[in-house]
Amino acid sequence: MNKKLTVGIIGAGRIGKVHAASIMNFIPEAQIKYISDPWEGAKEWVDSLNGPIYTANTTDIFKDKEVEAVLICSSTDTHVKYIIEAANAKKHIFCEKPIDHDISRIQAAVAAVEENGVKFQIGFNRRFDNNFKAVKKAIVDGSIGDVRFVNITSRDPGAPSVEYIKVSGGIFMDMTIHDFDMARFLAGSEVEEVYTKAAVMVDPEIGKAGDYDSAAIVLTFKNGAIGIINNCREASYGYDQRVEVFGSKGMVNITNNLHSRAVISTKDGVTGEKPLDFFMDRYTQSYADEVKEFINAIVNNGELTTCVADGLKSVEIAKAATESAKTGVPVKL
Amino acid sequence: MNKKLTVGIIGAGRIGKVHAASIMNFIPEAQIKYISDPWEGAKEWVDSLNGPIYTANTTDIFKDKEVEAVLICSSTDTHVKYIIEAANAKKHIFCEKPIDHDISRIQAAVAAVEENGVKFQIGFNRRFDNNFKAVKKAIVDGSIGDVRFVNITSRDPGAPSVEYIKVSGGIFMDMTIHDFDMARFLAGSEVEEVYTKAAVMVDPEIGKAGDYDSAAIVLTFKNGAIGIINNCREASYGYDQRVEVFGSKGMVNITNNLHSRAVISTKDGVTGEKPLDFFMDRYTQSYADEVKEFINAIVNNGELTTCVADGLKSVEIAKAATESAKTGVPVKL
Amino acid sequence: MNKKLTVGIIGAGRIGKVHAASIMNFIPEAQIKYISDPWEGAKEWVDSLNGPIYTANTTDIFKDKEVEAVLICSSTDTHVKYIIEAANAKKHIFCEKPIDHDISRIQAAVAAVEENGVKFQIGFNRRFDNNFKAVKKAIVDGSIGDVRFVNITSRDPGAPSVEYIKVSGGIFMDMTIHDFDMARFLAGSEVEEVYTKAAVMVDPEIGKAGDYDSAAIVLTFKNGAIGIINNCREASYGYDQRVEVFGSKGMVNITNNLHSRAVISTKDGVTGEKPLDFFMDRYTQSYADEVKEFINAIVNNGELTTCVADGLKSVEIAKAATESAKTGVPVKL
Amino acid sequence: MNKKLTVGIIGAGRIGKVHAASIMNFIPEAQIKYISDPWEGAKEWVDSLNGPIYTANTTDIFKDKEVEAVLICSSTDTHVKYIIEAANAKKHIFCEKPIDHDISRIQAAVAAVEENGVKFQIGFNRRFDNNFKAVKKAIVDGSIGDVRFVNITSRDPGAPSVEYIKVSGGIFMDMTIHDFDMARFLAGSEVEEVYTKAAVMVDPEIGKAGDYDSAAIVLTFKNGAIGIINNCREASYGYDQRVEVFGSKGMVNITNNLHSRAVISTKDGVTGEKPLDFFMDRYTQSYADEVKEFINAIVNNGELTTCVADGLKSVEIAKAATESAKTGVPVKL
Repeated sequence: MNKKLTVGIIGAGRIGKVHAASIMNFIPEAQIKYISDPWEGAKEWVDSLNGPIYTANTTDIFKDKEVEAVLICSSTDTHVKYIIEAANAKKHIFCEKPIDHDISRIQAAVAAVEENGVKFQIGFNRRFDNNFKAVKKAIVDGSIGDVRFVNITSRDPGAPSVEYIKVSGGIFMDMTIHDFDMARFLAGSEVEEVYTKAAVMVDPEIGKAGDYDSAAIVLTFKNGAIGIINNCREASYGYDQRVEVFGSKGMVNITNNLHSRAVISTKDGVTGEKPLDFFMDRYTQSYADEVKEFINAIVNNGELTTCVADGLKSVEIAKAATESAKTGVPVKL
Repeated sequence: MNKKLTVGIIGAGRIGKVHAASIMNFIPEAQIKYISDPWEGAKEWVDSLNGPIYTANTTDIFKDKEVEAVLICSSTDTHVKYIIEAANAKKHIFCEKPIDHDISRIQAAVAAVEENGVKFQIGFNRRFDNNFKAVKKAIVDGSIGDVRFVNITSRDPGAPSVEYIKVSGGIFMDMTIHDFDMARFLAGSEVEEVYTKAAVMVDPEIGKAGDYDSAAIVLTFKNGAIGIINNCREASYGYDQRVEVFGSKGMVNITNNLHSRAVISTKDGVTGEKPLDFFMDRYTQSYADEVKEFINAIVNNGELTTCVADGLKSVEIAKAATESAKTGVPVKL
Repeated sequence: MNKKLTVGIIGAGRIGKVHAASIMNFIPEAQIKYISDPWEGAKEWVDSLNGPIYTANTTDIFKDKEVEAVLICSSTDTHVKYIIEAANAKKHIFCEKPIDHDISRIQAAVAAVEENGVKFQIGFNRRFDNNFKAVKKAIVDGSIGDVRFVNITSRDPGAPSVEYIKVSGGIFMDMTIHDFDMARFLAGSEVEEVYTKAAVMVDPEIGKAGDYDSAAIVLTFKNGAIGIINNCREASYGYDQRVEVFGSKGMVNITNNLHSRAVISTKDGVTGEKPLDFFMDRYTQSYADEVKEFINAIVNNGELTTCVADGLKSVEIAKAATESAKTGVPVKL
Repeated sequence: MNKKLTVGIIGAGRIGKVHAASIMNFIPEAQIKYISDPWEGAKEWVDSLNGPIYTANTTDIFKDKEVEAVLICSSTDTHVKYIIEAANAKKHIFCEKPIDHDISRIQAAVAAVEENGVKFQIGFNRRFDNNFKAVKKAIVDGSIGDVRFVNITSRDPGAPSVEYIKVSGGIFMDMTIHDFDMARFLAGSEVEEVYTKAAVMVDPEIGKAGDYDSAAIVLTFKNGAIGIINNCREASYGYDQRVEVFGSKGMVNITNNLHSRAVISTKDGVTGEKPLDFFMDRYTQSYADEVKEFINAIVNNGELTTCVADGLKSVEIAKAATESAKTGVPVKL
């Protein structure tokens, strides 16, 4: 094997740990030199990995010439700062979503990436999921003809705490942003109008915090396709992640991954298992695959599924969706 | 058996024939005395039934004291006239949908029905379909808790002729009207706002005729539930009739009835049959059951699933949906 | 329409009533002139039909030159007698299964049918069922290549009374006979060996009556295919009627018809409906279709799906299966 | 973390590599000190792992006091020798299936394990598969009542080479042995009689080599349950691994894991994906889980799902099945 690509991970929270494990277990082409986190308690976990160096100071990473790529897994408000620093240090960037909640700040990050010509992948992991990839394939290979409707059902198993919601940027920035990205990806076109009917159906406290927990969203795409997104923060039966794309020649749809494929038939009915109820279980493989593609694209100068513009567009749609929910009328982008 | 209920059928077209066959084969409690139709060619078919009398003149039916109920299966523009005549003649009324395209004319029909105290059933046959009834049952018995979303997918196997479309009252009055009724039925509440994003995706000639062939519709109900309807005049894989109701305790959904339950697994995939592709095949039993309920309600003074107000409400929603499609903004009812 | 075919029905029990209704409602090419039954109480039902004549004496039917076909729906022990009388009177014959429990008596019936050249259909209605027909079609059109295994799951919703079982001829003659016919039909070959492992799992009283209530049966066909039948007299979740045919190019299988296609997802799982639990509901259409084919074959001199030999073969297999169950070793035919 | 358990792996073939990867990636409680293989080319792969020591000499492993457990992944004919050596060296043993093709040799291994009191797990990985575990759970928790039938469909995507088949011990020892173990596991009882109808349907060369490629097997269990196994070495649509357990209160069944849950509906039908077609993909997780349980049982003195007797019983059934196939009559155990 050739020399391994040296990477640094910024942020030792839940998703940072996922990406560290992916690289160590499944991506022999890369090695982690640093893992940074402002919280010094993270050192213990980093040390247990037998390899990566803990640092509280991200500058260590950006300064080290050996580091060719960084994974930005820190809190959203730090993304833009680290993107600009990394880009200027000519390091390739993988960044978690969303880039930021502010369009002009995102634009600054986009500019830094483009000026420095570094590779950029944003963590829209669902694009890497087996089921969603099969949907995309059916569209691209012409199986369903021209896309007419992209219908996404996206329901969480349970609402996060109201404290989290208050700093989340709102349901459209925090939850639906994945669906906006998926809708663009599958429609193969940009959104030009958004209509949102949002409501508080799950928990009045979410409403008091100024947010919604449920929504029906209609997207109009430049190519004439229409998107319909149905969100809810709580589904009693688990994490509901489905999509149906209807086109001139047919339809492709996916159902949920289940705990097992066992079905029990009794006098009370025919009962199968519920969907996997935690996003880390449901999307495990996609987290590894998005990072694998990022590393391989650097090593072999290959293509990436996502780009920095994807990070910008999804936030723009989230902003418009929020405005439509508040004004009650469709909003043009 | 007691004396049979004597009925008259007005209109010997496709649906008139369906109802005649239902009564003769499955409803021993009733007998058809007359079948009227302005087209004299209908006489041959009526005579072949060995029983009913053909007439070109509906007055024969309304005047005959022996006739206790009529089934109005004539063209939409004649419904109101016949409803008023039948109600004034104290005959119970089964009427095909829609009652009319004009709200004030429908109100006149409603008034005549109410003043004369006759029973009235409108032909929203899907309410009688086994699958939709199971959905309603799951809502009523509390299995899914409070209704949050009523999501209806309703796609025809192919568009009707442009000539038909020109006199149809438009997609919302002609096709979606069934879905509006179903949404009200399942939400258990009245619509207070409609947003429609409509498009011409199937045939530009439909657009030139001033109509749409595809739509995404968002309904807001008085009880806080939200409805999403997805229509298209053409689905390559057949007649697509699904509904999913999502509530606080769970979800109930139905898939399509298929030609058979055979599945073939080969090196090319695992292939099952397509949905039944003609509404007369898909909803056969429901046509018999709605008439059976109508006859039984008269004979036993029982309840009816639909009432004359259902005929009015669905047209009001169709009007609002049409206006929203044209103006691009939500319309209040 | 041309002159209707005149038929007589022998036996006014459950299945006689089913066939009478099929002819009156769905088969305009035929009319029922007589319905005979030794029990005079049947007269009331026959009279209520407004058409057919009741008789206690089947000779009335056989003597009447106008009658061209008979449907034998009487008890099994009378089948052979009536087949011979009908054949000698040159009447076409539809006979319920099994023809008889005794091979030599069946052979006499076969001889009478063949000598007189009358058409003969035996009531293996499952061959006319939509699902089983789709399986046969996939075999005949080559979709699955050469047949390797024909696997039949056939479980009743509940065991009949022990009194019935005592006169039923045993589980293989009474219940499995349908599966033996289906296995021959799908394998497209004759059985040359049968191995049966039978047991009493449902009700010890069935064992005391000298019968079994559960069985695994392995059939070897002349063309090299192997059949596996799994029977049980009781399935808590309803009437289980499935088949899977596995061939060199693929597999075709059918699942059960359900009460509806509604599925409810809650915290407790994802629950669909049970199979239809009564054979008259499950196979309704097939009963009408087998008689329709019989009438049409006479009127238009067409082909029949079953023949008198099918009645003989299925009984021969049932005999061999019974012997294998008792001796514990495979039995050659 | 406490001190890691030190293990040695014997055999660097396909399954040895799988277990090495499982330990290194998913089982932090253990570390691999040695990997032995008589083929010196294996050294390169072992060295690339950065940790384990390559040896051509298994004695290095048995002699090293630090090694507490071994995984025997070498060819079947060496299993007994290594089991005895390992047991005598007081090392816990994980051994791939089958232990041996010879009953008396297996008994010697069983004796060595029992005398030395070491833990023993045999590699019947399917017991650890999510789907099969859910079936077992439904039985154990009483959901389906008393087991009546255990029906296993087990078909490979394609036949191995005839060269392999000649040394495989035959289809029952090589392929069905997994199904025999699963049938015992699910029936919760021992087999007392086996009837096998075997055939050559896939490749005449397999017949010339003295083996079969297809079979229907009926097992009678001591507790009265009956097992039905259907095998074929080739299924055009992929690796077919299903089981259905039918009991007094209900049925539990599993369908295959698919490449994705995408379904495409077009004018040609409704087509889903095929089953995963390679056993390493289908059972990935179960390979890790069986070893994880083995390590944890040593570290925490826990229970094991399989024992050395399971290795013996499955071979005894395979022997009886082979005899029945050849003699044509059921064989008692």
